[in-house]
Amino acid sequence: MLLRNLSKRFMAYAKPSSEWKAPVRVVLTGANGNIGYAMAFRIASGDMLGPDQPVILHLLDLPNAQQGLVGLNMELNDCAFPLLHNVVTTDDYATAFSDVDFALLVGSKPRGPGMERADLLKDNGKIFIGQGKALNDYASRNCKTLVVGNPANTNCMILQSHCPGIPKENFCAMTRLDHDRGLSQLADYFNVNTTQLSDICIWGNHSPSMYPDVSFLKVNGEHVTSKIDTDWRVNNFTPRVQNRGAEIIANRKLSSAASAGNAAIAHTRDWHLGTNGEWTSFSVLSQGEYGISPGLIFSYPVVVDSNGNWEIVQGLEISAASREMIRKTENELIGERETVEHLLG
Amino acid sequence: MLLRNLSKRFMAYAKPSSEWKAPVRVVLTGANGNIGYAMAFRIASGDMLGPDQPVILHLLDLPNAQQGLVGLNMELNDCAFPLLHNVVTTDDYATAFSDVDFALLVGSKPRGPGMERADLLKDNGKIFIGQGKALNDYASRNCKTLVVGNPANTNCMILQSHCPGIPKENFCAMTRLDHDRGLSQLADYFNVNTTQLSDICIWGNHSPSMYPDVSFLKVNGEHVTSKIDTDWRVNNFTPRVQNRGAEIIANRKLSSAASAGNAAIAHTRDWHLGTNGEWTSFSVLSQGEYGISPGLIFSYPVVVDSNGNWEIVQGLEISAASREMIRKTENELIGERETVEHLLG
Repeated sequence: MLLRNLSKRFMAYAKPSSEWKAPVRVVLTGANGNIGYAMAFRIASGDMLGPDQPVILHLLDLPNAQQGLVGLNMELNDCAFPLLHNVVTTDDYATAFSDVDFALLVGSKPRGPGMERADLLKDNGKIFIGQGKALNDYASRNCKTLVVGNPANTNCMILQSHCPGIPKENFCAMTRLDHDRGLSQLADYFNVNTTQLSDICIWGNHSPSMYPDVSFLKVNGEHVTSKIDTDWRVNNFTPRVQNRGAEIIANRKLSSAASAGNAAIAHTRDWHLGTNGEWTSFSVLSQGEYGISPGLIFSYPVVVDSNGNWEIVQGLEISAASREMIRKTENELIGERETVEHLLG
Repeated sequence: MLLRNLSKRFMAYAKPSSEWKAPVRVVLTGANGNIGYAMAFRIASGDMLGPDQPVILHLLDLPNAQQGLVGLNMELNDCAFPLLHNVVTTDDYATAFSDVDFALLVGSKPRGPGMERADLLKDNGKIFIGQGKALNDYASRNCKTLVVGNPANTNCMILQSHCPGIPKENFCAMTRLDHDRGLSQLADYFNVNTTQLSDICIWGNHSPSMYPDVSFLKVNGEHVTSKIDTDWRVNNFTPRVQNRGAEIIANRKLSSAASAGNAAIAHTRDWHLGTNGEWTSFSVLSQGEYGISPGLIFSYPVVVDSNGNWEIVQGLEISAASREMIRKTENELIGERETVEHLLG
């Protein structure tokens, strides 16, 4: 579409550039996978960055997925999205990461049969060293990066350590899917719309050790934690949010794709446009907030201002029971860090 | 979410109903397939009916797909979409079609190896007799129905003939994907954004016999047909739009899913909210417009007003060459009608 080939013969027909908001570049890795397929069309439709923000999509995947990306590019074109100014398909990091304003890192190596978790961490670590260096070498200095590929928090920690040229606060791992899963369960419990709920968060790692915290939950602005049945919270809500991925696979025979893609879009939209004072959950670089070991990528409650700057919600009184849950998921992340210590930049 | 279980104990938390626009019911058939999966999340996000219109999704598929629908429902919930008020999953027509305001009929029987086209038409005809009767018995009298499942035009003709209780103008088959494929090719050719193009249309059948017509094409409001190279139009543009589905399959090894879903969403959005004077392509019941045999479901250029009423663009001067192309696709549809004559209501 527009801008694809500036030397084309009909430039006279292009509208004057002053009418266009400048397009931003978004790289999507693992673009030929199911999550990538679910995300690409929604990004191109304006669901992520707003209805007035043109995008240039960079679709990265492995060499053996390039023909699939050609097909995906055709389908994107076939939608005639007004906001989609160009699509780049590639298996080359320099091409994929050049000048990108947003990096959505969905691709990662999945755990194979008989594979140890340590090997999973190390194999992925190598991928994220390479992508961190590529972001450092080629991306916009303001690029915002969201790691979706698992183990997302530790992948993000490795990535960020190899990208000193971009501010530390520009790196997140995704716990938004867990956050929204929690919201949905609570909306069902209270029989309200999800928009009537506020002040929930996910602490820690995007793994079954995560802690979905309802200690501060409000419905229509009123504290309701005391109205949550403890047995339901401990034996139903918490394990269900922690293990929801397995529940999806048991029914779909496929892992979460569109819901994971939706969470990545929602995370990025909130990061770009702000949360209007509402809490969400971002996994970000700990600098010791709430006593968490500095240097981990840890999920915290955050708010995002309209300039796209996030801030960890401060001053929460954490109960002893919550503290124990938070410690457990922190310990898992500390263990992961020990496994990949040699891969940190 | 809200409305799922009105007897729940926390109704006191629900906002007063006056704050809600009444939700509409949308049935999606073949919901467990790839097109259904691509559509459900976008409908729930507000992409189809607008950001202020709550929806209740009815997901219909075959008995052996019910567990997949359970998984799909879970993933939809996990997105915490504010507009998604409820999800119904079923294999039962009465449940699926009751009180629906929009019917998106994506499911159909695909052509198996060695299957004759006549058998394909007849097997699908039986499905669409059943769904036509179910719409007649259960749906809202204002229900708008879009047939996506192939052979879409003839399926729609059969469907509509079994649903006398709903106005004839409430039935369409989808040629929007073909329309947008044409737009995208032309935007590339003129190196403009798709929004700068207007007045193209698809005539006839959603099949390789369709006629993508650029006789009236404008760029930024100026007629440009004389600037289109005839060789490119005849040997590149026309066959590429006609056979794009096969080109996608050759690359993706899967048929178009997200782009087909996007076209269904775009068709329905335009049908609901209007086209603001712009042409689009709807396959609708011919009453003899442009000399087409009455009773066929035939793709025409249409405009849709802001009340959701479409009108075929009248008074176009059709060239002899165009007339021949239109006759060819009409003849195909007449042949299809002869094959299924005994299935018409």
